[in-house]
Amino acid sequence: MNDLKKDIRPVEASTMADMVESRLREYLKRKSFVPGDALPKEQELADALGVSRNVVREALSRLRMLGMIDTRKKRGMVLAQPDILGSLERVLDPLILGKNTLRDIFELRLVLEMGLADLIYLRKTSGDITDLEAIVEQEMNKQQKAFRVEHEVAFHGKLYQMTGNDTYMRFQKMLLPVFEYVLDYEIGKDGETEAGQVTHHDLVEILKTGDAEDFRHGMKAHLKPHFDRLKA
Amino acid sequence: MNDLKKDIRPVEASTMADMVESRLREYLKRKSFVPGDALPKEQELADALGVSRNVVREALSRLRMLGMIDTRKKRGMVLAQPDILGSLERVLDPLILGKNTLRDIFELRLVLEMGLADLIYLRKTSGDITDLEAIVEQEMNKQQKAFRVEHEVAFHGKLYQMTGNDTYMRFQKMLLPVFEYVLDYEIGKDGETEAGQVTHHDLVEILKTGDAEDFRHGMKAHLKPHFDRLKA
Repeated sequence: MNDLKKDIRPVEASTMADMVESRLREYLKRKSFVPGDALPKEQELADALGVSRNVVREALSRLRMLGMIDTRKKRGMVLAQPDILGSLERVLDPLILGKNTLRDIFELRLVLEMGLADLIYLRKTSGDITDLEAIVEQEMNKQQKAFRVEHEVAFHGKLYQMTGNDTYMRFQKMLLPVFEYVLDYEIGKDGETEAGQVTHHDLVEILKTGDAEDFRHGMKAHLKPHFDRLKA
Repeated sequence: MNDLKKDIRPVEASTMADMVESRLREYLKRKSFVPGDALPKEQELADALGVSRNVVREALSRLRMLGMIDTRKKRGMVLAQPDILGSLERVLDPLILGKNTLRDIFELRLVLEMGLADLIYLRKTSGDITDLEAIVEQEMNKQQKAFRVEHEVAFHGKLYQMTGNDTYMRFQKMLLPVFEYVLDYEIGKDGETEAGQVTHHDLVEILKTGDAEDFRHGMKAHLKPHFDRLKA
């Protein structure tokens, strides 16, 4: 018996939770649950699935973390509209991501920057331009390298906001620190980042007088040092 | 006593799990855990946090779902490299997402398509072009509308793959069905989608003879009906 226990791994609660989680998601999808619909009770689910209530609770807790389940006073558990970026936010820690993923995110930020011109031109306002000008002015007064990340976040973050797309804005902002991490620790610890030929100031000028095409050209030139790095 | 029970909601296990989950993530970050590092045992965590082992198990189960924790034979729980898109995949169901999120995803797909030219030109091979030509040929032989989504997935999916960026590819592919859903059910149930002036076939020709700039122009024209829709 002891030998057997060594050779066969016990079925772990975590594996059960995986199965139950996936069964629950299948069930919700197949029955076309929509946000607001009440879910069966924990005990009913446990009975139907033939598992312990603890395992059901574990699986439900996962769906709750994804924002797919809400608990409402009196009505119990209901299906909810999940926050699609919530769990991404939880895992975007450069220290625990693999090298390939970090590289992918570095590139993804560039793709997202190159693609935003059309949305910006669809929605930019004169107030946005004023905001950008203020950010650029602040930037010129503080040239220390320590502020580089802050400037990047302020300037590009404002551009993301101008797209009027919350998901894009949150996503791109979440990628920025990972991007900076890759620049600082993976690509060259002490290598000074050379600036692109087109500065933040130039980009604002383009936004004032040029079209989406011009802006895309400008952004490409602004990001050129990063693109050149990909070729190496 | 009965009145009090009605007026004060009991602290639920789910709230406890939220807190424990966030404490655990803080702890792992503060102590600079890296993938492969062994985690304390469930019981030790429960003692330190002053909560029941069930609550700890619930919180750990969430981290396991995010791919942040792995269970290894003999070593127990260790920190792992999370799959950054795994949980996004779980919630990208058009039926449970809110209207704003669906609109955001529709636009995000366009942003990502407009931004991919540079990576494609960095990495495309002649084999890729042959693959694209085969996809376009198949497409011309089957003009039924029912195949539209399949063609979109085949053609654009191949473009995503050509970027050599797995995260970008998976992400964009995950967005595609949501995009199609918005086209079919939100924008116009029976409105025939007019094609852009630049076809898949034209895009392949550009890839053969033009540069990244030309491709971006072509893609903009290809996606024009979708961009026009945003202006409305």
